[in-house]
Amino acid sequence: MQIINGQAVAAYIKQQAKKECEVLSEAGKTPGLAVIIVGEDPASLVYVKNKITACKEVGINSFCYKLPADTDESTISDLIEKFNNDQNVDGILVQLPLPKTLNERSILSKIDVGKDVDGFSAEQMGKLLLGEGCLSSCTPSGVIQLLKYYNIPIAGKKAVIVGRSNTVGKPMALMLLSEDATVTICHSRTQNLSEITKTADILVVAIGKGKFIKRDMIKEGAVVIDVGMNRIDGKLCGDVDFDAVSEKCSFITPVPGGVGPMTVAMLINNTVQSAKTRMN
Amino acid sequence: MQIINGQAVAAYIKQQAKKECEVLSEAGKTPGLAVIIVGEDPASLVYVKNKITACKEVGINSFCYKLPADTDESTISDLIEKFNNDQNVDGILVQLPLPKTLNERSILSKIDVGKDVDGFSAEQMGKLLLGEGCLSSCTPSGVIQLLKYYNIPIAGKKAVIVGRSNTVGKPMALMLLSEDATVTICHSRTQNLSEITKTADILVVAIGKGKFIKRDMIKEGAVVIDVGMNRIDGKLCGDVDFDAVSEKCSFITPVPGGVGPMTVAMLINNTVQSAKTRMN
Repeated sequence: MQIINGQAVAAYIKQQAKKECEVLSEAGKTPGLAVIIVGEDPASLVYVKNKITACKEVGINSFCYKLPADTDESTISDLIEKFNNDQNVDGILVQLPLPKTLNERSILSKIDVGKDVDGFSAEQMGKLLLGEGCLSSCTPSGVIQLLKYYNIPIAGKKAVIVGRSNTVGKPMALMLLSEDATVTICHSRTQNLSEITKTADILVVAIGKGKFIKRDMIKEGAVVIDVGMNRIDGKLCGDVDFDAVSEKCSFITPVPGGVGPMTVAMLINNTVQSAKTRMN
Repeated sequence: MQIINGQAVAAYIKQQAKKECEVLSEAGKTPGLAVIIVGEDPASLVYVKNKITACKEVGINSFCYKLPADTDESTISDLIEKFNNDQNVDGILVQLPLPKTLNERSILSKIDVGKDVDGFSAEQMGKLLLGEGCLSSCTPSGVIQLLKYYNIPIAGKKAVIVGRSNTVGKPMALMLLSEDATVTICHSRTQNLSEITKTADILVVAIGKGKFIKRDMIKEGAVVIDVGMNRIDGKLCGDVDFDAVSEKCSFITPVPGGVGPMTVAMLINNTVQSAKTRMN
């Protein structure tokens, strides 16, 4: 059994991005990421801080706007519009979740598709489905990068995804499908879940329920990717019961240090790729 | 075993659309569909003729433009632009396939999203993934309508889709998922296909291979939806070996007369729904 080192792969991807950033900067085009955070959600503040730190490491200019929780939609839209038209901004990130008073979908739809480095817009999702080159959702594309880095075969394999969120489950299914896996999507309404998860060569879990996936739910030798991030008794854990499951699988991602760092690395990568399209 | 009568369900949907059309027309808003066909592909000419006929039945104005096979992209784009701005046009349909000299994706992207009644644009596909109300792909939404008309339960059922096309397989997966099915997508690279198809409560096949699905590939009592349309020895047949499979399943769509008529009915329905949004 091998533990997938997300920190190391993320560092590698950021290293590549740094090299690309240097080339771009020498050509007079330093990539830029604009981050908007509304309110004081502590987890969101940590995530944003990590993203800004990663930008600095790599050489991306970051522009962070912290707005009070009672900011209205038009103020945020105006700010997004400004970034849409700003040649120094290649990526625009609105940290989610937004305060419940705001319409998340409406705000996200204001972001220029070419600067949607989170890949959450309808058009980017549609491009993903259609197999067109795009800035794809960071977490699922991070999972694909992990599998590729470890030379884990995907084509012809049976992939099972537990969870059908717009940010992970559904785009993950499309990405694994385009890598030629046979893909099954399970969720809260799935019957006999463990019978299905036991057929998986590659199991991706993103449901937000601590230690939900037990040893008897996986096949011997499976690759287990844990996208969960929960706290049990104050301690961070994934959706997979790591200690019990890890003995039985061939590869597994730990929490923390698995998928998490990849999300930031893919955001950085998307920002650099986006900057390249703005070179000419 | 019950044969699903696509003709009858399509007639019912068109009847509903006709009533809505009458109400709209009385309010001074007769729905309009613009159809563009390039070249002389015989099958495409038949499809377009059927669509125009259905428009007439229902009371939708249709505007059909037959262009020669050597028409260039800018001519088609200009025509689309004209329809985008025409208040009498609620739906724009570019009949596929286009001649190979033309960039299909680029041309489709010119259609105003609100008039994309085929649901093929990136943005409509993305909205489908995100679960936002949209004009969704006609063939897979027609399949959903068939299942609902026959009160076939979907939630919690195991749905298997064979085929991963952009027009059927992938949107079909998202629609079945949003109806709470557990969804598996199989394709040419899937290993042990029949082991997977045998687990399906609902099996949807869209691969374009005549009589490919045999009796031993399905579960007793399964619901079998055949999206295929092939010719063997000059005779029309689906992707399912109907005679052998029909004895074993609970519901099955015939070819012709199953899914086919639904595609046209859903196009009509999308055009009427689109017209409603243009009422105010």
